[in-house]
Amino acid sequence: MLILGELINCTRKKVGAAAAARDAAAIRDVALRQAAAGADYLDVNGGLPGQEPETLAWLVGVVQEVTELPLCLDSSDPAAFQAALPHCRRTPMISSITEEPERFARILPLVKEYGTSVVALAMGPAATPTGVDDRVDNAARLVDRLAAEGIALDGIYVDPCVLPLSVDTTQGAAVADAISLLRERYPGVHTTVGLSNVSFGLPARKLLNQAFLALLMSRGLDSAIADPCDRQLMALVRAADTLLGGDDFCAAYIADYRAGKLTEPAAASAAP
Amino acid sequence: MLILGELINCTRKKVGAAAAARDAAAIRDVALRQAAAGADYLDVNGGLPGQEPETLAWLVGVVQEVTELPLCLDSSDPAAFQAALPHCRRTPMISSITEEPERFARILPLVKEYGTSVVALAMGPAATPTGVDDRVDNAARLVDRLAAEGIALDGIYVDPCVLPLSVDTTQGAAVADAISLLRERYPGVHTTVGLSNVSFGLPARKLLNQAFLALLMSRGLDSAIADPCDRQLMALVRAADTLLGGDDFCAAYIADYRAGKLTEPAAASAAP
Repeated sequence: MLILGELINCTRKKVGAAAAARDAAAIRDVALRQAAAGADYLDVNGGLPGQEPETLAWLVGVVQEVTELPLCLDSSDPAAFQAALPHCRRTPMISSITEEPERFARILPLVKEYGTSVVALAMGPAATPTGVDDRVDNAARLVDRLAAEGIALDGIYVDPCVLPLSVDTTQGAAVADAISLLRERYPGVHTTVGLSNVSFGLPARKLLNQAFLALLMSRGLDSAIADPCDRQLMALVRAADTLLGGDDFCAAYIADYRAGKLTEPAAASAAP
Repeated sequence: MLILGELINCTRKKVGAAAAARDAAAIRDVALRQAAAGADYLDVNGGLPGQEPETLAWLVGVVQEVTELPLCLDSSDPAAFQAALPHCRRTPMISSITEEPERFARILPLVKEYGTSVVALAMGPAATPTGVDDRVDNAARLVDRLAAEGIALDGIYVDPCVLPLSVDTTQGAAVADAISLLRERYPGVHTTVGLSNVSFGLPARKLLNQAFLALLMSRGLDSAIADPCDRQLMALVRAADTLLGGDDFCAAYIADYRAGKLTEPAAASAAP
């Protein structure tokens, strides 16, 4: 299970302000905290209005000062990828490509040139998918096109589009069923989700995110953009991975337990 | 999702001692705590060596003094069911029937006479199942026999036999896959598990139990023998149920949130 740490995202108020002020120390801190918490990739989103390409390139440089984790460049603007890709020291992931003709035409050459892996977002040509079949059909067309272009299935991370339960309570089950079907149809393709979208507009969001990740892992999900600094989330990921047979002799589970990662930190004792 | 509260079980040291001493107050307390925590059924196991039938009957009477929750009579001894069934005020569940000839022959008439629902344990004629196919085959034979005897599918709770991960790390995935297949083959049959078996012999057991329940709900599990007093488990069950579309308008989730059930209780403030 790959966790793509979601916190370096300029649409988040504090991070956006830090990026706008080119406050490298603040960005480094967010990178380090996610790395320490066990992120496998760091998602980097430079979405400041009117200055996304240079911001994304700057973020990539700053983050790489403190961590060797691979990055996931997160944007809807091909120009931002173009600006940031030359600065990546390790092969990154690009998030995301869609069927939208201009986006597809501009992003595909970058995926090829830099040999990146790519998130394939199952957004339809006309509408956001809301059911199982439209998610699977959209994803299938996109995977087939990418494969026809020579992109290895192992480099494709299908994102079935997570929509908020608060808008439509069928969305969680639809995403889960779409992941099951996609795993069956394309065993070599990865799947990913923007996890926290599911809980938008509801209280106790972390709990929903945690449960959703476990549910989806049971359907074959193998990566997610999520908050690695949520200890309970990361503990559940470890537990789910062990339960699903991905942990020989339960060795990783026991090691995480011994390292204190699976239980809440003891409350600080009161000052005398 | 039905949670069968597991705590009134005489193989647990304190409960066994309380039952042996006929300490009704202690048993009532365990019943009340589980009812308050949201159990749907109370599992009652009177397994004291040499005195199980009378102990189970006594437990049934004591528990019913304080709660109207239906009971799940839990034993491998048909004589215990026979002793306890006449005391049940609501139609109970019986746990469990197996293919073992004497057990099947003695328990089936009780299920019919009292109209109980029944846990059908997928234990094979010769061995405990360890894979997917043996679990499904064992369960299928038992369900087919029960159906042929006129037992309604809706009254059957198939238990695929949860074995400890600490013995074999494939057991979690095998149970999950067996539940998927059984739900497909017998859509009208319920499924259940003895949840905590999965974590036997490992540290941080509650975390594994919590993650396992969410994983299995994603495969269609609709009941479990578990600890309703584990707040985090119950919160995850509510979240998973909402995520899987079982909660119109997320109303139950929001109500549980408002009732303080989804978050940890605030730490008591230090005395001045």
